[in-house]
Amino acid sequence: MSESRTHPVSGPETLLPSWRPGPTRDAIVSFLEATADVAIEDRVACFDNDGTLWCERPHYVQLEFLLDVLRSAVAADPRVADGEEFAALLSGDQEAIGAIGIERIGMALTGLLAGISPEVFRERARAFLARAAHPTLGRRLRECTYQPMLELIEELRARDFSVCIATGGGTDFVRAVSLDLYGVAPEAVVGTLLAYDVVSVADGGPSLVRTARLLGDANEGPAKVTNIQTQLGRRPILAVGNSAGDRDMLAWAANGMGPRLAVLLDHDDDEREFAYQSLAATIADSEPITAVAERAGWTVVSMARDWEQVFATTT
Amino acid sequence: MSESRTHPVSGPETLLPSWRPGPTRDAIVSFLEATADVAIEDRVACFDNDGTLWCERPHYVQLEFLLDVLRSAVAADPRVADGEEFAALLSGDQEAIGAIGIERIGMALTGLLAGISPEVFRERARAFLARAAHPTLGRRLRECTYQPMLELIEELRARDFSVCIATGGGTDFVRAVSLDLYGVAPEAVVGTLLAYDVVSVADGGPSLVRTARLLGDANEGPAKVTNIQTQLGRRPILAVGNSAGDRDMLAWAANGMGPRLAVLLDHDDDEREFAYQSLAATIADSEPITAVAERAGWTVVSMARDWEQVFATTT
Repeated sequence: MSESRTHPVSGPETLLPSWRPGPTRDAIVSFLEATADVAIEDRVACFDNDGTLWCERPHYVQLEFLLDVLRSAVAADPRVADGEEFAALLSGDQEAIGAIGIERIGMALTGLLAGISPEVFRERARAFLARAAHPTLGRRLRECTYQPMLELIEELRARDFSVCIATGGGTDFVRAVSLDLYGVAPEAVVGTLLAYDVVSVADGGPSLVRTARLLGDANEGPAKVTNIQTQLGRRPILAVGNSAGDRDMLAWAANGMGPRLAVLLDHDDDEREFAYQSLAATIADSEPITAVAERAGWTVVSMARDWEQVFATTT
Repeated sequence: MSESRTHPVSGPETLLPSWRPGPTRDAIVSFLEATADVAIEDRVACFDNDGTLWCERPHYVQLEFLLDVLRSAVAADPRVADGEEFAALLSGDQEAIGAIGIERIGMALTGLLAGISPEVFRERARAFLARAAHPTLGRRLRECTYQPMLELIEELRARDFSVCIATGGGTDFVRAVSLDLYGVAPEAVVGTLLAYDVVSVADGGPSLVRTARLLGDANEGPAKVTNIQTQLGRRPILAVGNSAGDRDMLAWAANGMGPRLAVLLDHDDDEREFAYQSLAATIADSEPITAVAERAGWTVVSMARDWEQVFATTT
């Protein structure tokens, strides 16, 4: 039913070379081997993006992109900087930023790109990623993907998995680079959606332009579960995430018939990357998402302990 | 960037064997050949389903399915037949059906399947398709796909196209059969979406159940354009449809840079299939969609003239 794949399946000894031997790698390899009996159409893997497939610190890559868009807009017209949201952002005044709220600032930044076509947006995102550098890691932003995750994606494809991305980020932004960075086609990316407006061109049929209106909820938490079902049409048997926003997706993937695996990446490596925790809301309190994962029996990846190499090999 | 394909590209003489030689087949072959210079990521084709990939007369296949669900429900509990919508439907009283409206009846039928999981729905749809016969054509419903369209899909895949379905029908229903009938994965099907409810299972994480609430508009007209962009993330360079509901998608695909083709199937063959017209609303009046197509320069396929064979070869 699925297309035949051209990649060979690796033997266990050469699998996932950037993953250090140990219980984490063993759990992943065992899962991979167990899926040989799963119907191909049910071999579905969903990866979060920010903090799971690539670095999200000190800022989301998408925020770096939007700041770059803002700087260009201000260079073209300095009055753009006078808006309340942008003035706070450009001054770096954390109190003012907190008072306005990151959601409102994010939508104001998104508004800078309202009115352009999806294709022009795609080219702008790609041009930014082609040149932008990470502020501290000494590599380009596009090279801040994680080599062990790229190897896992390749291994899943070799086993006829459909590999999908479920991101809290903007769908269009991730789609602009998903094929190039991860080999994931746009239709396999589920994210936070913006609405388009239909613009009629005389004798030219409809065209679409971006708006600054969200379509539905941000793709986090329970919305990740319903959006994966409505947009991809299948329940994953493997989910990989790193934050509280992935909790529902991980629980959904982990529970059900047959081989299933939920993987949580713990950022505990401030030498090679960053060390930080994501807090998950529980009944009446907050606790680290890693504690939720341990209790649920998910596979927790320690970046410091389990990865021999963190970032993508660049050529 | 795209996966390599295993199908060979046919030479022009053996291409599309169920299409009779003539201007229609020539237009399609010319388009296929012209796309060799298009970037693979932009090789996107969107097909309508009902009346384009399979027969939609005398009823939509999905309506046959829902009527089957209704008959089962009535057999289990005869009181189900007493509801206003179902009483009208089961009596065949066209006046009563018209007064209630097909939308309300359709949602009442959909309500019969509310509360079940997506996986159970998928199995019910597949079980129905595995056994149901077309009422007049002397073949199973699942064999009422069009052989020339299957050949076109295969030819597009051989040329590294992403082949997608944009249907006015229910997304879940079409996804249940799209891989088997057309080789199209669920995430490449865009249709009319139902909302899911998240149900918490104790210690088992979230599960999803179907509702009887539409998520957004029915996937017809301009919604087909915006939904293709938001859900698939790419603008097609080939669109194939048959009705007024496909008009916006066809116009959108036809206009733009590079090789583009809009194909409209005209059901003009009451010997082998059915002969009927779809009316498109224009400025102040209605006209056959074929007239819109001729004016726009789209490629109109006459089923009677252009197809040597109509239905799928069954094995």
